[in-house]
Amino acid sequence: MSLYGAYDDQNIFAKIIRGEASCYKVYEDDDVLAFLDLFPQSFGHTLVIPKRGKARNLLEVDAQNLTKLTLVAQKLARALADELQPDGIQVAQFNGAAAGQTVFHLHFHIIPRFDDAGLGAHAAGKAEPAQLQALQERLVRRIGE
Amino acid sequence: MSLYGAYDDQNIFAKIIRGEASCYKVYEDDDVLAFLDLFPQSFGHTLVIPKRGKARNLLEVDAQNLTKLTLVAQKLARALADELQPDGIQVAQFNGAAAGQTVFHLHFHIIPRFDDAGLGAHAAGKAEPAQLQALQERLVRRIGE
Repeated sequence: MSLYGAYDDQNIFAKIIRGEASCYKVYEDDDVLAFLDLFPQSFGHTLVIPKRGKARNLLEVDAQNLTKLTLVAQKLARALADELQPDGIQVAQFNGAAAGQTVFHLHFHIIPRFDDAGLGAHAAGKAEPAQLQALQERLVRRIGE
Repeated sequence: MSLYGAYDDQNIFAKIIRGEASCYKVYEDDDVLAFLDLFPQSFGHTLVIPKRGKARNLLEVDAQNLTKLTLVAQKLARALADELQPDGIQVAQFNGAAAGQTVFHLHFHIIPRFDDAGLGAHAAGKAEPAQLQALQERLVRRIGE
């Protein structure tokens, strides 16, 4: 299967961008959206996606959207570091099902790591809504500072 | 341990940038350097690093260097996709030992994935010099096209 291909407008991130699906949004501007992963691999697992263009992955995105996306990913990594004080942060970006990609709209994973906690398998368990909402509020407040 | 800290000028990537240590270089410009990982997690595992600034990780790098780094990472991902025809490509960037970082100079991993091959543990085995050199030549040629 080629890493280049047709963009599916019905993927869940496209629906979130259009407002047809909800998310625990922590940051948004004209070009980029960030929200909490519903099946977090760790506490604070956040996704950052471009709102414009129809790039399925890193190969397909244009330079301008990639630049904006990366700078917001950094902003989120800093906010997570400041707010949650993790011991480390993993950034991951998957291209193709063989690399672990499950939603075919370009996205970065920002995954805080804590020394006292292992890493959960992605999609192994859904987070509690109350926990996601409390975390969302903390991050929105932190990013706004 | 904080994710912010003092940069160690004696880390291996700083030595590579200064020409004090060798590498299988596949791309270089004024700001960014890319070379093959000596302990590859898969065939084609490539590292991309900024040459300027003294950022240990994503939190510390300035916007200009991050932007240049990201665009070269994309260039390398495309070159690896075209040259090696993998089934997927993982991009990873680790911040802090708790996240798997071992060299404390900001870097992106570009890791091709092949359906018929699992992912090796990082640093589990050193690649053969002849294989690295042949791969280096293929990628240099591909990027130059």
